[in-house]
Amino acid sequence: MITKIEGLIAAPFSTQDKQGNILYDRIPLYHDLLEKNEVSGAFINGSTGEGVSLTQKERMKTAEYWALAAKQSKLKIINLVGGTSYAECIENARHSEEIGMDAIALLAPYYFKPANAKALVEFCAKVAEAVPQMPVYFYHIPVLTGCNISMYDFLKEASTAIPNLAGIKYTHEDFMDFQSCINFENGKYDMLWGRDENLLSALILGARGGVGSTFNYAAPLYYQLIDAFDNGDFEMARKLQQQSIDMIRLLGKYGGIATGKAYMRYIGFECGEFRLPVKNMSNEAYQEFEKDVQGLQMQDLFSKL
Amino acid sequence: MITKIEGLIAAPFSTQDKQGNILYDRIPLYHDLLEKNEVSGAFINGSTGEGVSLTQKERMKTAEYWALAAKQSKLKIINLVGGTSYAECIENARHSEEIGMDAIALLAPYYFKPANAKALVEFCAKVAEAVPQMPVYFYHIPVLTGCNISMYDFLKEASTAIPNLAGIKYTHEDFMDFQSCINFENGKYDMLWGRDENLLSALILGARGGVGSTFNYAAPLYYQLIDAFDNGDFEMARKLQQQSIDMIRLLGKYGGIATGKAYMRYIGFECGEFRLPVKNMSNEAYQEFEKDVQGLQMQDLFSKL
Amino acid sequence: MITKIEGLIAAPFSTQDKQGNILYDRIPLYHDLLEKNEVSGAFINGSTGEGVSLTQKERMKTAEYWALAAKQSKLKIINLVGGTSYAECIENARHSEEIGMDAIALLAPYYFKPANAKALVEFCAKVAEAVPQMPVYFYHIPVLTGCNISMYDFLKEASTAIPNLAGIKYTHEDFMDFQSCINFENGKYDMLWGRDENLLSALILGARGGVGSTFNYAAPLYYQLIDAFDNGDFEMARKLQQQSIDMIRLLGKYGGIATGKAYMRYIGFECGEFRLPVKNMSNEAYQEFEKDVQGLQMQDLFSKL
Amino acid sequence: MITKIEGLIAAPFSTQDKQGNILYDRIPLYHDLLEKNEVSGAFINGSTGEGVSLTQKERMKTAEYWALAAKQSKLKIINLVGGTSYAECIENARHSEEIGMDAIALLAPYYFKPANAKALVEFCAKVAEAVPQMPVYFYHIPVLTGCNISMYDFLKEASTAIPNLAGIKYTHEDFMDFQSCINFENGKYDMLWGRDENLLSALILGARGGVGSTFNYAAPLYYQLIDAFDNGDFEMARKLQQQSIDMIRLLGKYGGIATGKAYMRYIGFECGEFRLPVKNMSNEAYQEFEKDVQGLQMQDLFSKL
Repeated sequence: MITKIEGLIAAPFSTQDKQGNILYDRIPLYHDLLEKNEVSGAFINGSTGEGVSLTQKERMKTAEYWALAAKQSKLKIINLVGGTSYAECIENARHSEEIGMDAIALLAPYYFKPANAKALVEFCAKVAEAVPQMPVYFYHIPVLTGCNISMYDFLKEASTAIPNLAGIKYTHEDFMDFQSCINFENGKYDMLWGRDENLLSALILGARGGVGSTFNYAAPLYYQLIDAFDNGDFEMARKLQQQSIDMIRLLGKYGGIATGKAYMRYIGFECGEFRLPVKNMSNEAYQEFEKDVQGLQMQDLFSKL
Repeated sequence: MITKIEGLIAAPFSTQDKQGNILYDRIPLYHDLLEKNEVSGAFINGSTGEGVSLTQKERMKTAEYWALAAKQSKLKIINLVGGTSYAECIENARHSEEIGMDAIALLAPYYFKPANAKALVEFCAKVAEAVPQMPVYFYHIPVLTGCNISMYDFLKEASTAIPNLAGIKYTHEDFMDFQSCINFENGKYDMLWGRDENLLSALILGARGGVGSTFNYAAPLYYQLIDAFDNGDFEMARKLQQQSIDMIRLLGKYGGIATGKAYMRYIGFECGEFRLPVKNMSNEAYQEFEKDVQGLQMQDLFSKL
Repeated sequence: MITKIEGLIAAPFSTQDKQGNILYDRIPLYHDLLEKNEVSGAFINGSTGEGVSLTQKERMKTAEYWALAAKQSKLKIINLVGGTSYAECIENARHSEEIGMDAIALLAPYYFKPANAKALVEFCAKVAEAVPQMPVYFYHIPVLTGCNISMYDFLKEASTAIPNLAGIKYTHEDFMDFQSCINFENGKYDMLWGRDENLLSALILGARGGVGSTFNYAAPLYYQLIDAFDNGDFEMARKLQQQSIDMIRLLGKYGGIATGKAYMRYIGFECGEFRLPVKNMSNEAYQEFEKDVQGLQMQDLFSKL
Repeated sequence: MITKIEGLIAAPFSTQDKQGNILYDRIPLYHDLLEKNEVSGAFINGSTGEGVSLTQKERMKTAEYWALAAKQSKLKIINLVGGTSYAECIENARHSEEIGMDAIALLAPYYFKPANAKALVEFCAKVAEAVPQMPVYFYHIPVLTGCNISMYDFLKEASTAIPNLAGIKYTHEDFMDFQSCINFENGKYDMLWGRDENLLSALILGARGGVGSTFNYAAPLYYQLIDAFDNGDFEMARKLQQQSIDMIRLLGKYGGIATGKAYMRYIGFECGEFRLPVKNMSNEAYQEFEKDVQGLQMQDLFSKL
C-alpha cells in the first residue's frame, strides 16, 4: 500500500562554494529551513539539486547528509538516482536504501531515449528490482530528458512490471495525462505535481502534493494557496497563483534555473552558484533582480529563516 | 467595453457529402442542434470546421448560412478569417462584417512564422484595422500553426495596437500564460479556453467560456461539469472531466480530428468526411469505434438531436 | 518521359511597392535579368515569391505576366500552386495550364499535416489528376511546412499514383534521402536541389539542377562553381561554395528571407518589401548590410543588370 | 600543430555477454579486426560504444584494454569522456592521459543544455584545461544531445579558449556549418565527418576523415568509395554511397542503433546486445535481417575477419 505525500516537497539546491565544491555542512541548516516552513519533504539530487552535474560520489554524500539531517524530523527524503547507466543507478539506489532514504526516483534515460512506454518501463524495472523494498518514483520531465512518453501508458506497463512503483513526479503540462494517472486503478499511485506555476490547476483535479524548486523559498505562498483552495476562496487562490507566476516569470527574465539560487540569496540562505553548463547571474544582474523582487510586494510569502 | 461570452462555444464541423461538397442546407439544422443543447455560440471555419481546407468562397458562403441561421437565436457566431495572406483575411473580414457576424478570429500565419510578438501583432492589426467595429479574437493553436509566442507578450503589444481585440481562443496547455492573460489589465480580455479535456483546470483559474469541438456532440457533459464546479462538487466535476478525457482519448486511437465526425454520426447528425489531407475513418473502423463509445457508458452526456 | 532541367532555376521575389502592391510591370524586366544571367528557369509564387502571402488572384496574375515574359525565351516557368485547400490548388493548376506554364509545383499542406507518405500523395494526386498533361513537381521544404516525410517513401507511393509527377524541388538537408530519390527507378525523376549553400554536395551525388533564391542575384557564382566542379577543379569549387555560404550567412545576420530583397537592391533591381508577417530591413540596417556585402569582395560573382 | 587523421575511424561497439557484462577480452580481437581492414583509428565509448550506458569504471577499463591493444599498432584511439558532470569528465580525461589515449572527446552536456556557444565552450574548456597536453575533439551530435549550436560559432569561441582543441567529430547534416568549420582559420581544425551515409558529400568539401559505426563492418566499401572519388570515378563513388545507404536503411527498418550489432554478428564478430533502454533485435528478426542483408549483394564490401 502506497503512502501518499501531502503538501509541499522542496527540491533543494546543491549548496556550493564559488569554486563549485559542495558545502555539505550547510545541508542540516537547509533541512531546518524547510522544516521551519512546514515543507513535507525534500526531493534531492534532482534538476534543482544538479544531480546530473555532480559525481556519483557527491550525489551519495549529499544523500548521506540529508538522511542524517532528516533522521529526527518528519521530512520525507526522495533521492533521484536516475541517469543513463542503469548500473550506476542501481549502485546509487542500493546506497540510498542503506542510508535510509524514504524513496528513490528515476528519470527517463536522456541520451538514448526509450522508443516507447515498454522500453522505459524495462529500464526503470531493472533498477527498481534491485531495491524491492524501496518506494520508487518516476520523475517525468520531458523538457529536459527529451522523452515525452504518456505517463498513462507508462502506468499501464509499470503497474505489473514495477511492484514497488510509488508514483510520479509530474513536471509537464499535459493535464489530460496527469488526471488519467490520478484516476488510474482507483488512485493507486502518488501523483506529485511538478509545475509550481500551475499548482491550482492540479489541485482541482485532486492532486494533494507537489514537488518544486520554488517551495525552497516561497513555501508560505503555496500553503496559503492550498488553504484558500481548501476553503473555497478561489479569488484568493487565484491571486496567490498569479503571485507565484510573477515570481517565476523572473526566472525567465534572468536566464533560467540559476535564478532560483538568487531567490535563496534573497531570503538569506546562500547556496552559491550552479555548475557549468548552467549560466549564473552576475552581481550586477543580482542588483537589478533584487529590485524586481521587491517590486513583487510579496515579502511575507517567502520562506523564513 | 468587451462583452465576454460565457458557456460553451462549439466549433462546428463542415457538413459535406462523400465527394467533399459542402451541404450548406444542413447548417440551419446544425444551428438548431447547438441551440437545443444550450450552446452559447459557434466558432465557424476553424480547425474543426476545416476553414483552411475550403476555398475563400466556400468559407464565405458557410458564414452566410450561419449568419442567417443565427439571426433569430442567441448564438454568437465567430468566423475564423485567418490565413497566411492578410489581403485575403481582410477580404473575408469585411464580408463577415457585412453579413453580420458577431466577431472574427485570426490565426498566426502558419507558413512564414512571425519572429516575435510584435510581428504577430502587426499582422493581426493589419486585418483588424480594416474592420474597426468588429470584435477580433486571436486563435492561439501552436500545435497547428507552429507559432508558439506567449500570449501574455502578445497582449502587451496588442493592447494598444489592436483596439478592437476582444480576446483569445486559447488552445494550448500553458496555464501560466493563460492565467496571466486572464488577469491582464484587470481582466480586460475575453479568454476562451480551447482544450476541452482540461476545462476544469481552466475554470479554477477563472475561465467562464470555452471553444471546442467536443461541445458539438457532448455539450451536456460540459454543462454538468461547469454546474458541479460552480456548486463546489469537485468529485463530480472530476468524474465528468475524466469522462471527457476517455471520450477524447478515442480521437487518438482512431486517428485524430476526423474522429469528431464519427461522434457526430454516432449522435445522429451526419457531417460526412474531412477533406484531404485529413485521414477519414473507414466503415470497419467505425463499427469498432461505435462499440468503444458504447463502452464509455455516457449515453446521457451526449448532445440531443 | 520527363524532361530534366539543367542549371539554375531562380525563385523570383515578388516585386512590390512600399504599400505592398504588386508591380506586375517589373516582371518582364525581371525575366530579362534572369535570361541575361543564363538562368534556366523561374520557380514562381514559391517561398521567395511569397505565394502564400498573396491572394489567389495575385498569384494568377503574377503567373500570367511570367508566362507572357517567357513566351519567346528558353526559360522554363514552374508555378507553385500549393496550399492547404486542394480546391484552390486545382483552380490555380488549371489556370496555370491555360496560360502556358511549363509545370506546376505542390507543397505539403501546412496546417493539417499529412500523417504519412500515403496521405501526402493522395492530396497531391487530387490536384495533379486535374491537370493530367502538366508536369508536377513536389516542393519539399519541411522547415516551413512542418511536414517531414521521407521523399523516398513519397516516390514509392507517387510513382504509380501520380503519373504526371516530374520531380522534386528538394529544400532539406537529408542527403541520404535525396540521393535515394536521384537513384529511384533508374533516375526517373528530376531532382532539383533547393539549398544553394550546399549545391556542391548535391552535384557530387549527381544533381544537375537547382532551384534557389540566391540565383536571382548571384547566378555567376554558381555557374562558375558548376564549371569548376565539371572541370575537376575542386579547390575552386570549394572556394566558390564558401563564398556562397558567406553571402548566405548575411541572411541570418539581417533577419532572414527579407534580406534577399536587400541583395536585389544591392545589384540594382529593386523589389520592394516582403509582406507581413515577414520582417523587413530598415534603411539603417541596409547601410550596414551594404558594407558587409562590399566586405565579401565578390563583386563579379553577382548577377548583371 | 594539429595532426589530422585521414581515413576511417571506427566507433567500436561495446562487446557484451547476454547479461550485459562487458567482455574485455574481446577488445584485442576487435582491434585486430579493425587493423586488418585498414581502419585508421577507434573512437571508443561513444554512442556506438554505449559510453553513456556504462559505469565510469567500465568506461575506464574499456579504455585501458584499447590502449593496450593499440600499443603496437598505428590505430589512433580517441576516448569519449563527455558527460553531464564536468568533474567526472575530468577524472576520465586524466585517466585517459595516464593510459596513453591519443585523444579525448567531449559531448555537449545533454541534460542541462548550454544556452549558447560561449556556455558550451566554457564547459568544454573546464575539462580540456585539466589535460592540456591531450588533443581534444568535440563530438557534435545534436540528435542525441539536444544541443544544436552552430559549430562555426563554437570554433570562434573555442579557438582561443581551448588551446588543445584538435577538431570536431561532426554528426549532423548541416553542410554549410561543416564547410565553414573546414575552412575556419585556414583549415586549422581536424574535421571528422560523422554521417557515413553522406561521406561523399563531405569528401567533395575537403573532408579527409570520418568517424562512424558502419566502418566497423563495412570498411572496404568506404575505402573503395574514397578511392573512386580520388580517382575521379564519380559514377562508382555514387554507386558505393548508394550501397552504403541501402545498408544503413536496414537500421531504420530493424529498430535503430542495435542493428549495428546484428551486422557485426553477420560478419562473424559477435558483440552481444545493447544495454537498456536500447531495444535489441529478436532472433526471429535477425533471421529476416540476414536475408535482407544477403539481398543487398555486397558481400565483398564487408570487413573481413
